[in-house]
Amino acid sequence: MTAPHSRDLDRDTVLCISLAARPSNIGTRFHNYLYNQLGLNYVYKAFAPADIAAAVTGIRGLPIRGAAVSMPYKEAVIDLVDVMEPSAAAIDSVNTIVNDDGVLHAYNTDYQAVADLLVASSFDRSAPAVVAGSGGMAKAVVAAMRDSGFTDVTVIARNVATGSALAEKYGFRHATEVGDARPTTLVNATPIGMAGGPDSDGMPFAQGVIDAATGCLDVVAMPPETPLVRAMRARDAEVISGDAVIAGQAAAQFALYTGITPTPEQVGEASEYSRS
Amino acid sequence: MTAPHSRDLDRDTVLCISLAARPSNIGTRFHNYLYNQLGLNYVYKAFAPADIAAAVTGIRGLPIRGAAVSMPYKEAVIDLVDVMEPSAAAIDSVNTIVNDDGVLHAYNTDYQAVADLLVASSFDRSAPAVVAGSGGMAKAVVAAMRDSGFTDVTVIARNVATGSALAEKYGFRHATEVGDARPTTLVNATPIGMAGGPDSDGMPFAQGVIDAATGCLDVVAMPPETPLVRAMRARDAEVISGDAVIAGQAAAQFALYTGITPTPEQVGEASEYSRS
Repeated sequence: MTAPHSRDLDRDTVLCISLAARPSNIGTRFHNYLYNQLGLNYVYKAFAPADIAAAVTGIRGLPIRGAAVSMPYKEAVIDLVDVMEPSAAAIDSVNTIVNDDGVLHAYNTDYQAVADLLVASSFDRSAPAVVAGSGGMAKAVVAAMRDSGFTDVTVIARNVATGSALAEKYGFRHATEVGDARPTTLVNATPIGMAGGPDSDGMPFAQGVIDAATGCLDVVAMPPETPLVRAMRARDAEVISGDAVIAGQAAAQFALYTGITPTPEQVGEASEYSRS
Repeated sequence: MTAPHSRDLDRDTVLCISLAARPSNIGTRFHNYLYNQLGLNYVYKAFAPADIAAAVTGIRGLPIRGAAVSMPYKEAVIDLVDVMEPSAAAIDSVNTIVNDDGVLHAYNTDYQAVADLLVASSFDRSAPAVVAGSGGMAKAVVAAMRDSGFTDVTVIARNVATGSALAEKYGFRHATEVGDARPTTLVNATPIGMAGGPDSDGMPFAQGVIDAATGCLDVVAMPPETPLVRAMRARDAEVISGDAVIAGQAAAQFALYTGITPTPEQVGEASEYSRS
């Protein structure tokens, strides 16, 4: 395999991008690493758009092959694309745009990656589960839980409006706190535990709740070793950490952009590289 | 100096592009080579736009730092930019857009490069000169000739409408052929001699005209050794070939995008690399 140098880009090089208010380096490094490893004439570049509608117009006009869409644009781009594919329509949220000859197709690979990880896990999907959070990522997670067979889910959110709306949308319950419940599966879909955030040392669940659970999904990817993940691993619980979610959704984007599905080993390497 | 690998792009990497119906690889290789040599966190990518207005909207919206503009968009973008800088306004033709915090400035570095090369040459600017051609590049060349001090210029074009309009605009004469004249300086601003074109083996001037001239500028860059350039060099005439024009205009673009003026040696290396 050749590993193209940036000075060897040519007129046929395909551009994929990301659109986020505050881009990280993860997507840029993940995709460019795999392009290089697989010898694909693609290049990936992150943007913090000056104007999201103009940026999407640029995807059509230049054209650009694909775009990852992050906060705060996941809902705003719905009216700017042509086709809402099932993964995006399921949660009214777009994290991926694919430009097929001028027709913009919208997907949500967060939803798809979480659903795939849940199906591959040993989590007991008929046992009680709780999801902390009611934001964009919580929507992807709750929808993926329902669609992967979870039947007993409680959305835990202090915001009654968004929490109950999310729960009702997927036929689940809402509560403002876990209280005395002792669910089997714990899901964190809040920024608690995220480096640089206000709650980087925080824990989304009380110790008594953690002690009673046997499985955990945490969407925080930076770092993947959140306090919750560490506490659950210390108990030998089954854990899906945020780096698996972000790698899974990025791999799904990669396949949509290039038509090539990277192997789990390649995804693992690229994921490790992306966080180094 | 480090030479960044494409997989080492990060969120701060600045994108510059080109917009052309049929992009060559020259600009892409020239700019990326210099970015790498100078250790600049930039990347350059050529586009054949699906929609020029949408592409320029994308320059603002993403944002993109700069764009080279080629055929057939050099006039079409005039209404899409915010500020026509003197080099573009002089010839109503844009070959470079620079995005300064959302304000799009338009330049014409072809005009600037030709003017700079003419001023640095030993051409006798008071002696008779002829320019073959009346298209976009001829406009840049004729304006640059006037502004660098040529006083006796005849535009040679079979198209009477465009030829006479161009000549009159800059206070020169138009003729449909050189005829019995024996000008001192010969300028080719047509595609005659261009590889892959219909006249790749052609000569824009008759042998008798060539034999009487002492200086020549040919805008054809692929190959720089056109039949005209070879014939004039064989006579030890002073020659400015198209690779010098394209390198000069690309170096001027590079300086506009990055704020860094590459040395003549760096421009020479990048130019050689761009055509390899």
